[in-house]
Amino acid sequence: MSRYFLGHIDQMAGYVPGEQPRDGGFIKLNTNENPYPPSPRVAEAIAEALGERLRLYPDPVGTAFRKVAADLHRVEPGMILAGNGSDDLLTILTRAFVGPGDTVAYPTPSYILYQTLAEIQGARAVEVPFEADWSLGPSGFERAGARLAFVANPNSPSGTMLPPDQLAAIACRIDCPLVVDEAYVDFAEGDAVGLVAAHPNVIVLRTLSKGYSLAGLRLGYLIARPEMVAGLIKVKDSYNCDTLSLVGGAAALEDRDYLAGTTARIKATRRRLTEAMRGLGYHVPESRANFAWCTGGPPAVATYEALKARRILVRLMRYPGQPDGLRITVGTDEEIDRLLEALRG
Amino acid sequence: MSRYFLGHIDQMAGYVPGEQPRDGGFIKLNTNENPYPPSPRVAEAIAEALGERLRLYPDPVGTAFRKVAADLHRVEPGMILAGNGSDDLLTILTRAFVGPGDTVAYPTPSYILYQTLAEIQGARAVEVPFEADWSLGPSGFERAGARLAFVANPNSPSGTMLPPDQLAAIACRIDCPLVVDEAYVDFAEGDAVGLVAAHPNVIVLRTLSKGYSLAGLRLGYLIARPEMVAGLIKVKDSYNCDTLSLVGGAAALEDRDYLAGTTARIKATRRRLTEAMRGLGYHVPESRANFAWCTGGPPAVATYEALKARRILVRLMRYPGQPDGLRITVGTDEEIDRLLEALRG
Repeated sequence: MSRYFLGHIDQMAGYVPGEQPRDGGFIKLNTNENPYPPSPRVAEAIAEALGERLRLYPDPVGTAFRKVAADLHRVEPGMILAGNGSDDLLTILTRAFVGPGDTVAYPTPSYILYQTLAEIQGARAVEVPFEADWSLGPSGFERAGARLAFVANPNSPSGTMLPPDQLAAIACRIDCPLVVDEAYVDFAEGDAVGLVAAHPNVIVLRTLSKGYSLAGLRLGYLIARPEMVAGLIKVKDSYNCDTLSLVGGAAALEDRDYLAGTTARIKATRRRLTEAMRGLGYHVPESRANFAWCTGGPPAVATYEALKARRILVRLMRYPGQPDGLRITVGTDEEIDRLLEALRG
Repeated sequence: MSRYFLGHIDQMAGYVPGEQPRDGGFIKLNTNENPYPPSPRVAEAIAEALGERLRLYPDPVGTAFRKVAADLHRVEPGMILAGNGSDDLLTILTRAFVGPGDTVAYPTPSYILYQTLAEIQGARAVEVPFEADWSLGPSGFERAGARLAFVANPNSPSGTMLPPDQLAAIACRIDCPLVVDEAYVDFAEGDAVGLVAAHPNVIVLRTLSKGYSLAGLRLGYLIARPEMVAGLIKVKDSYNCDTLSLVGGAAALEDRDYLAGTTARIKATRRRLTEAMRGLGYHVPESRANFAWCTGGPPAVATYEALKARRILVRLMRYPGQPDGLRITVGTDEEIDRLLEALRG
């Protein structure tokens, strides 16, 4: 059977998503889901679209969603491409730009999926190490000679964020698209959308899974030059976004007050979590995301196991050459109280 | 900008899905959508899942949906893989088995997307012509030396169907996976699921877009050996199916009576459409799908244009070496009456 698969596919391990326990009763702080429900307008919009409309194919480019996203970012609709989660867009980007033997560059430690996507294409991954202060110069990317570069900003697992001038310096020094993956940007100040105007190789990626609390709906989008979007449309599945996610996603983007309210609560809890973890002896970089990256405290593996035994799930992360760490999602205040109580116990 | 794209991506045209007019008022007989709404149980199941549950990631392999599909086909759940429409599964299959320069084989005339998928992978397409009676021997596939073979069964645009023994003969004579794309099988008698037991290289593909009237929801699945499914999971996006499509899809599969009722109506209308088109001088093979393939009548381009001017959309299809044809979706009886009236006018 395995001989039917391409050799590099047969040999790769595959990406392992965070645990999704199907029995309830867990405090789930391991996959950066939002602890608050999505805007109630999402369910209203989806309920309206149910029934007869499902028998028809969706709009292949999600024209109505595109317009809402374009208005939000003050760009043309032709600069927006919707995807079945930002994972779908990451896949499309890799397939459009990277062939077997080509190079994909990204910082380390960062989102592990970038490596998996390079592997599926039979490409080579070049990892550019962050500096000790989580900054990133352009020279590592320049030397990589990549066909595609990814930077998660804010970064996972660190939660740290590069300023636009560091991203611009990278974009200038490489001869390939630079994907700025802003999955967590709704919990930060500022973003990189402004770079697209001056740097035709910059592509900004967004998801509705985190800030908008719609991980279950699968919707993301990218912002790039119209010529870039036109090329990517050739690679995507014709109907990659379903009717319900497009109408629900548009409703979520339009409810600015709701987003502001939930992200303000998460930021306040993030402050408490960060300080408490530092008080427990962990090193915690200042997070701009909805999680805290905790290293240097009691052994991470034992802590992860002890928490899991108490039905609290956090993400144990191990990167070569880096200390083991716990990436802890910012839950509700009550969930974080339970976590801190368990850690102190 | 185009220099960033892989050369073969830059040069390809891209698949053009059927027209989806956004202004209403069309009788839409061009993309094989079901004229009847989906089972009411679909909307009920989705309405129940709305809200809080959307904040969590979906089950990566759709365990509950998998079980329903496995029960339906009397196979193990590990033999089912769900996809974001069967297009997603076709993409996964191509990425898992086909590299640049490899060969993909499929009959002609058939689903044009197979060629596009080969192009995106930088692969070579070998088209195996149908015989005049729409049968297909194994020798064309054997000679192709392909890494992957597709057979749409029932086929589009012909609507014809190969018996299982012809498929088995092909499966035996090729050294690669044979994907039997059963998108339209709900309108036929019999299927190829039984072949998977005897032929480890057979993969059967299903969609909920046609028989179940859920084109807007994006859900398909495949049936294959568990080792095959395990390998394909490495290539798919982690969360390729959203929470709502998985619960709605399971509800649709479980409502057997509803499916039987709507497909019976469509088959009766198909009979009327086929006979009427033959009466108008068209050659129409006996269709096992929800459309009729009409060639040899008045010039196809002019007829297509005249119908469109009367706000009736059918699909004009042109294959090299074949007569132009009109692929007409089986709509409601009233829609087909309007079509026939226009054709006679």
